Amino acid sequence: MTWQGTASQFLQERDKAIPSEYLLTLPPAEDVIDVKDYPTLPGILSPLELEITQSLTVTELLEAIRAGKYTAVQVTQAFCHRATVAHQLTNCLTEFFFDKATLRAKELDDHFQKTGKTVVPISLKDQIEVEGTAFTMSYVGWIGNKAKHNAVIADILLAQGAVLYCRTNMSQGLWFGEGYNNVYGRTLNPFNRNVTCGGSSGGEGALIGLRGSLLGVGSDIGGSVRIPAAYQALYGVRGSYARIPYCKASNSCEGQEMVRSVLGPLTVSVDGLKTFYQAVLGAKPWELDPWTPRMPWSDGAYNLVEHGGGDKLCFAIMWDDGVVKPCPPYERGMKEVKEALLGAGHEVIDWTPYKSAEARDLLMRFFTADGGYDLKKQLALSGEPQLGSILDRGTPELSAHELFDLCYRRSAFVKNSLDYWNATVNQTSTGRPVDAIIAPASGGPPQPHDGFMWLGYTGFCNLNDYTSSILPVAQVDPELDPKPARSEFHGDDDRKTYNQYDPVFMKGAPCSLQIIGKKYEEEAVIRMTEIADAALKKYRA
Amino acid sequence: MTWQGTASQFLQERDKAIPSEYLLTLPPAEDVIDVKDYPTLPGILSPLELEITQSLTVTELLEAIRAGKYTAVQVTQAFCHRATVAHQLTNCLTEFFFDKATLRAKELDDHFQKTGKTVVPISLKDQIEVEGTAFTMSYVGWIGNKAKHNAVIADILLAQGAVLYCRTNMSQGLWFGEGYNNVYGRTLNPFNRNVTCGGSSGGEGALIGLRGSLLGVGSDIGGSVRIPAAYQALYGVRGSYARIPYCKASNSCEGQEMVRSVLGPLTVSVDGLKTFYQAVLGAKPWELDPWTPRMPWSDGAYNLVEHGGGDKLCFAIMWDDGVVKPCPPYERGMKEVKEALLGAGHEVIDWTPYKSAEARDLLMRFFTADGGYDLKKQLALSGEPQLGSILDRGTPELSAHELFDLCYRRSAFVKNSLDYWNATVNQTSTGRPVDAIIAPASGGPPQPHDGFMWLGYTGFCNLNDYTSSILPVAQVDPELDPKPARSEFHGDDDRKTYNQYDPVFMKGAPCSLQIIGKKYEEEAVIRMTEIADAALKKYRA
Repeated sequence: MTWQGTASQFLQERDKAIPSEYLLTLPPAEDVIDVKDYPTLPGILSPLELEITQSLTVTELLEAIRAGKYTAVQVTQAFCHRATVAHQLTNCLTEFFFDKATLRAKELDDHFQKTGKTVVPISLKDQIEVEGTAFTMSYVGWIGNKAKHNAVIADILLAQGAVLYCRTNMSQGLWFGEGYNNVYGRTLNPFNRNVTCGGSSGGEGALIGLRGSLLGVGSDIGGSVRIPAAYQALYGVRGSYARIPYCKASNSCEGQEMVRSVLGPLTVSVDGLKTFYQAVLGAKPWELDPWTPRMPWSDGAYNLVEHGGGDKLCFAIMWDDGVVKPCPPYERGMKEVKEALLGAGHEVIDWTPYKSAEARDLLMRFFTADGGYDLKKQLALSGEPQLGSILDRGTPELSAHELFDLCYRRSAFVKNSLDYWNATVNQTSTGRPVDAIIAPASGGPPQPHDGFMWLGYTGFCNLNDYTSSILPVAQVDPELDPKPARSEFHGDDDRKTYNQYDPVFMKGAPCSLQIIGKKYEEEAVIRMTEIADAALKKYRA
Repeated sequence: MTWQGTASQFLQERDKAIPSEYLLTLPPAEDVIDVKDYPTLPGILSPLELEITQSLTVTELLEAIRAGKYTAVQVTQAFCHRATVAHQLTNCLTEFFFDKATLRAKELDDHFQKTGKTVVPISLKDQIEVEGTAFTMSYVGWIGNKAKHNAVIADILLAQGAVLYCRTNMSQGLWFGEGYNNVYGRTLNPFNRNVTCGGSSGGEGALIGLRGSLLGVGSDIGGSVRIPAAYQALYGVRGSYARIPYCKASNSCEGQEMVRSVLGPLTVSVDGLKTFYQAVLGAKPWELDPWTPRMPWSDGAYNLVEHGGGDKLCFAIMWDDGVVKPCPPYERGMKEVKEALLGAGHEVIDWTPYKSAEARDLLMRFFTADGGYDLKKQLALSGEPQLGSILDRGTPELSAHELFDLCYRRSAFVKNSLDYWNATVNQTSTGRPVDAIIAPASGGPPQPHDGFMWLGYTGFCNLNDYTSSILPVAQVDPELDPKPARSEFHGDDDRKTYNQYDPVFMKGAPCSLQIIGKKYEEEAVIRMTEIADAALKKYRA
């Protein structure tokens, strides 16, 4: 059979698990671009399903379950239904195990009095194993595999009371910033189906963007949690290495442990970030993942004891990384956030970027260190073609000593970056170095499918292992964000980003910022994101 | 000039810095084996120098300085003198900068009222840079280099009030368990000069063994802090990756960051361990070393809150790792420690080792991953010959994807090891898994120079990143530890260790145990070491 046949047959079998009553009788035409509010149309969801899924924050939903307002079964079924709708609009799901989820929810309802533990239904990126479910890592050649175990994160979420009900699409081999592969096809952005949902955790982005899930788990080695969170106006965190356990989840280039991929949450409301971290860290994940540092959730760090208690923070805005000038909606968002933070009594200074191009080059050399060996091996299993462009470089494989040299250069770079950050103590009025950097999540808004994306704004955090969150700030508005005239560029990547920018085509697509803290500052970054989010809401009110 | 000539000329120049009044007029003859008490002989040290250096613990010396009993200058000069004596007995020093140290001590005395900070003089392994001093990394080809900066650990110790006065010998390229290279020659064991001081931090071992320093810093990638600590009856800790900052200290195979070398203390008294960790972690080393996790000293961890408060601990003894059966003095030591711990109300069970041979093989493959590229490059600078045997394997260099495969196998191994440890909850009466493993520091006592050493007992901690300390328990005693008759062996390494064992030749050489905790359990391991040390002293009293 051709690889196309194998994939097609696999999806036909999979789709039998979709409850027929969840199938849309009249889905929106392909040229309906904005499908974000489609699930709220009459007759799509039941009133109860809509009430449960439409507007609650993560905390509000949790409290409603705890208060007995909704049962776990009701909540689970509502999200199963809405996720199926989201899937029919954007092709965001890879696997759905609604029967398993409903059984689990019944158990939770039965035992609720005993455990007192409840977490909302949680969606997982496709690379995260759930025992007994299909597991392809997005490769046609893996079709037929079933997961033999749960990933540690799945076990922990289950232990904390979560219901797992679906997994979500990602880019082929996790190698580029979209949700597109030869098994499951392409995921669209519900805000504007002309543009990408981002990636590699793109399915999470589209699903949660449509509130088919309030909280999901993606992975990030260059921006793969943050880009889809940013592109769907969600909140998200890329924490530092292994703080959230990655163990027994699959990955590309297994054993490339030098620039580590990390797991992190994408969520509809800012409170979801703290909820997720407290739940996971409360389970002592270092007892299950040997790479997870022995660092419980710290209320002190969350209360910003290392940052003057948080009353007067100093943020530094990266207006331009010197390689790709951010497109107008980002500039608009940064200006608004600046005013909002100043209005809330904080200090805001400019961040002079530190060797952005070198950071990107170092990061890319790690990604291509095996000369594409792993990807080629996986593709050869079925003969499927390569998608995306990251490995299209003909970069030769490194030898061990060349890889050591690369690690050595990286460690020196990271040390210099840290010293550079610490030296900002001379630029603030707080007596501390800059508390957090604010930067765009990308140079351009969500790009057209197969378009160009500059990885530098997110990637330097992966190289330096900074903790970074996503704060939604803007959507492309052709009137507010017209294309400026420009004739001078930093270089090719800048020119490409500029040329691609089209505020009419990209209308409504979200543009978001990052709040970036130092390594292992998850609690502080979450708190600073809450502070910035509240300041922005107050400023706009 | 030949490499021998280069080295010899370099040492002649260096030796001019030895104060002539510190030169021994009548050093002990080469066939005087035990020189441990030589510094106490009349006429070697002044009465004040002897009082300061001979019997105080680290804490007692610190308190004496704080109380104004001794000035920093007196203390510094006493240790400079004693270190010089130690050097003449064992060839343990590489660099001495006594003038600099005395100037520094004067400053400390002047500013003592201001800072209130005081730390004893601290010795450093030769790979740890002190700005402006000679820096060779033990390679003849590096002769002429001066350190251009301080290692982060040196900066931190200075900031905490330490006096740095010397650096100490190590094995060529840090590659084997002795103190021997072509620049500085061979360091001897002061308890028995027929046998090795261990290594690679061998100079620290011999120097501190002779109390030419009460506290020093070594590095450990396979046992290099623990072996010399064990072989000189000292205390030491190999903490988990980067807890003690390594940044800007040099290393072999720079960029081999998969199995990380770590820095750790060697010290004369068990209280030195806590003193060292509190001082270093109190300086927020994560602000200076980007690889150091954001983990302050934890009193809770030290007070064993995760181990039932420490009232009833369960230790598991590894009597034999299944590859090399420990020689009689270790068995004697383990039996004594078992009785002592039982007497103190703790539980002691047997530890069944987890795949010892596989752990060693994995570790060795990392050490040889570059096929000896780095070592060969350094040796070629001068034409000096290779010493030691670790890289004598003709192992081919790995490619990047092979190295990834190795990392992947290692991570799976480490996860399985953790699960294995956690499963011991079924063997204890405490409701917890085993709190710590007790294991020999080596299979045999300190080996004859250029002899055989099985790395497995220490190495599995490096592979798993367990925190491990050294507890001195025995010295070879021909009467108590006769060579048993054995005709069956686990394998070649076991046979070699047995054949090498000679209780008469090795008489007086220390044999020590490890107390092994999980990753990032430095505080708990230090406390459990104090508990075991106190129990043993009480048992023997």
